[in-house]
Amino acid sequence: MSLRYAKRMDNIKASEIRELLKLTQKPEVISFAGGLPAPELFPVEELKKVSLKVSDEQGTAALQYGPTEGYEPLREQITKRMEKIGVKAKPENILVTSGSQQGLDFSAKIFINPGDIILCESPSYMGAINAFKAYEPKFIGVPTDEDGMIMEELEDILKNNDRVRFIYVIPDFQNPSGRTWSIERRKRLIELANEYNIAIVEDNPYGELRFEGEYYPSVKHYDTEGRVIFLGTFSKIFCPGLRLGWVYAEKEVLNKYVLAKQGSDLQSSTISQMQIAKFLEEYDIEKHIEKLKEVYKNRRDIMINTMKEEFPEEVKFTNPQGGLFTWVVLPEYMNARDLAVKALEKNVAFVPGGSFFPNGGNENTLRLNYSNMDEEKIKIGIKRLADAIKDMMKETQKA
Amino acid sequence: MSLRYAKRMDNIKASEIRELLKLTQKPEVISFAGGLPAPELFPVEELKKVSLKVSDEQGTAALQYGPTEGYEPLREQITKRMEKIGVKAKPENILVTSGSQQGLDFSAKIFINPGDIILCESPSYMGAINAFKAYEPKFIGVPTDEDGMIMEELEDILKNNDRVRFIYVIPDFQNPSGRTWSIERRKRLIELANEYNIAIVEDNPYGELRFEGEYYPSVKHYDTEGRVIFLGTFSKIFCPGLRLGWVYAEKEVLNKYVLAKQGSDLQSSTISQMQIAKFLEEYDIEKHIEKLKEVYKNRRDIMINTMKEEFPEEVKFTNPQGGLFTWVVLPEYMNARDLAVKALEKNVAFVPGGSFFPNGGNENTLRLNYSNMDEEKIKIGIKRLADAIKDMMKETQKA
Repeated sequence: MSLRYAKRMDNIKASEIRELLKLTQKPEVISFAGGLPAPELFPVEELKKVSLKVSDEQGTAALQYGPTEGYEPLREQITKRMEKIGVKAKPENILVTSGSQQGLDFSAKIFINPGDIILCESPSYMGAINAFKAYEPKFIGVPTDEDGMIMEELEDILKNNDRVRFIYVIPDFQNPSGRTWSIERRKRLIELANEYNIAIVEDNPYGELRFEGEYYPSVKHYDTEGRVIFLGTFSKIFCPGLRLGWVYAEKEVLNKYVLAKQGSDLQSSTISQMQIAKFLEEYDIEKHIEKLKEVYKNRRDIMINTMKEEFPEEVKFTNPQGGLFTWVVLPEYMNARDLAVKALEKNVAFVPGGSFFPNGGNENTLRLNYSNMDEEKIKIGIKRLADAIKDMMKETQKA
Repeated sequence: MSLRYAKRMDNIKASEIRELLKLTQKPEVISFAGGLPAPELFPVEELKKVSLKVSDEQGTAALQYGPTEGYEPLREQITKRMEKIGVKAKPENILVTSGSQQGLDFSAKIFINPGDIILCESPSYMGAINAFKAYEPKFIGVPTDEDGMIMEELEDILKNNDRVRFIYVIPDFQNPSGRTWSIERRKRLIELANEYNIAIVEDNPYGELRFEGEYYPSVKHYDTEGRVIFLGTFSKIFCPGLRLGWVYAEKEVLNKYVLAKQGSDLQSSTISQMQIAKFLEEYDIEKHIEKLKEVYKNRRDIMINTMKEEFPEEVKFTNPQGGLFTWVVLPEYMNARDLAVKALEKNVAFVPGGSFFPNGGNENTLRLNYSNMDEEKIKIGIKRLADAIKDMMKETQKA
């Protein structure tokens, strides 16, 4: 038997990260591969308490179908998160989704005909690239530097391509690069999107995890015409296991997302929405986020400092001011996929960077996560990785 | 500002049911409109207890990311549900989804290029039709009778259309008609699908809710070549609020669904999967299902008997042996959408049947749900509906 699948399925491959994660679950492996938050910081006891309350107070309603748009008190709570990043939000502009990943899938579903163009940062989040690919777009990766997308390059691309449907950006502590856009670039992005009538999909899972320096308002904050669709999530500031995120958009645009949600899974879990709403009412999530930032900051420091001490000089890396990731660039003659195999022999794992480029190339790059391992393990793991890099350099020189 | 959306969005409209449900939430309305299970039967206390255990025993793991395929012990529990409908299942053939609705969305995503053909029963589940429409198929509704799809009609269609990609069927207590396929038709469906190399999507949310007569094995049971994709759900036998269902398919086919799941939302809720797995380990769901059947059977009886007493003779309806719905056919000159407006004035609600036909027509039909209202309300509601029907008949005769 050989069934005939849709053409789009030719584009979709297993996520390299999720396949790799399976290999790295052995306890002896120090993994910098996933984007996993630190489980020891999850508010297990608090969630247990609010779950009891939800069962006692909301009983059967918590187990019944609810509105596609989401549980009203949760939508109200989400407006507070939006305020923190400079957006005066109304609950009616919010759709609760199953993680921000679902917002990514819907964005392509809503905007992309086969052959339409998506612009993204180069590199960009591989989970977004994979989600988008199901809708058969073309990708153009816009070159980036320390301050985000380079606006002259973006303008040039917009001028020469009339099938661009949206620009996908992660302006804060980007996955995978760890970089943050300057305010000037955020403003210019809006100007260009207005001029060329393009939607912007702003993905912001890490924005609240800033370790130092001042918060920048989100791109949505600068949106003058309602063309920014903002994707948020509780995965990194609370926990990923509940699978709850949100889309914030103008009503006209949000209505399309609501329709996509109806077809995809009707609604997100009623009881989980009630639990997280209750948590946000009864506990101080700001305090929880402070704790996360403190721990992650220390882990970043250890990782960056150990890399400075142990990595050969030719290896470059970013020093993110927040979020979960740093980005490593090896000398051009090195291949990070080969390095990953060697590293795994030394029981240390990371994600090769090539998959973060929708059109390939850049095989000398890799992404490191520092949120999921404790400081001791980060130190040991980076040393192992440094050894693997040095071994590979020697072999190349011999050859 | 006017953003440019994908062509597929022209096909997707708000679900009539979900829009209608908003109107019917006033307490004075007796609603036969939704597909809602009886909330008073939800195992609230049991779920509370297992939630506590999950928090205590699995703590942080319950809040972390998990595998896309689903939580292993839950996949094992699901094999037991499959056994009950005659399928010897292995956990590796199961993907946990966010309700069976997500399995519907994925089916079209995986199999349908724009212009490909989906065959479905006429009428069929409107939520499936809406989910499929996002992938721009053509629909052919296959005529049905008391025993399911008419096989000569199906064969004729298969002979004359080479772009059929799958046949979508709800063989047990169908939504909306309440009808159940005969065993003979199930076997013949497999023969024809084999002959024409077509996939079958078997949607089975109600199969375990049989009030009388013998269980029929699922279509999947008769599958000789692994071409049936089976969609199951906990929504009707447990509760819909957790949003958990599953896809059961051959490994090669299931892999495609796993890829779709990765792009769509990475995975279903870790903690909800653990809770339902724990519930299935610690409680007797068979006993719970017996209770559901008893209550729903009484409600069906009341609805059918009251319709027999109160409806004019020209109005026909099905007498389902299980599930949640009965299907009403008015005289051809009547329009159920107009009737719905009149009925709502009398504080009774239902879903007009037209939306269950992908290519329109059949506006003299409607669907009634009997699981969500108690016996007293069913009696009163059907009387009100009978009054609305009689009023409308009189008006038509006058005109």
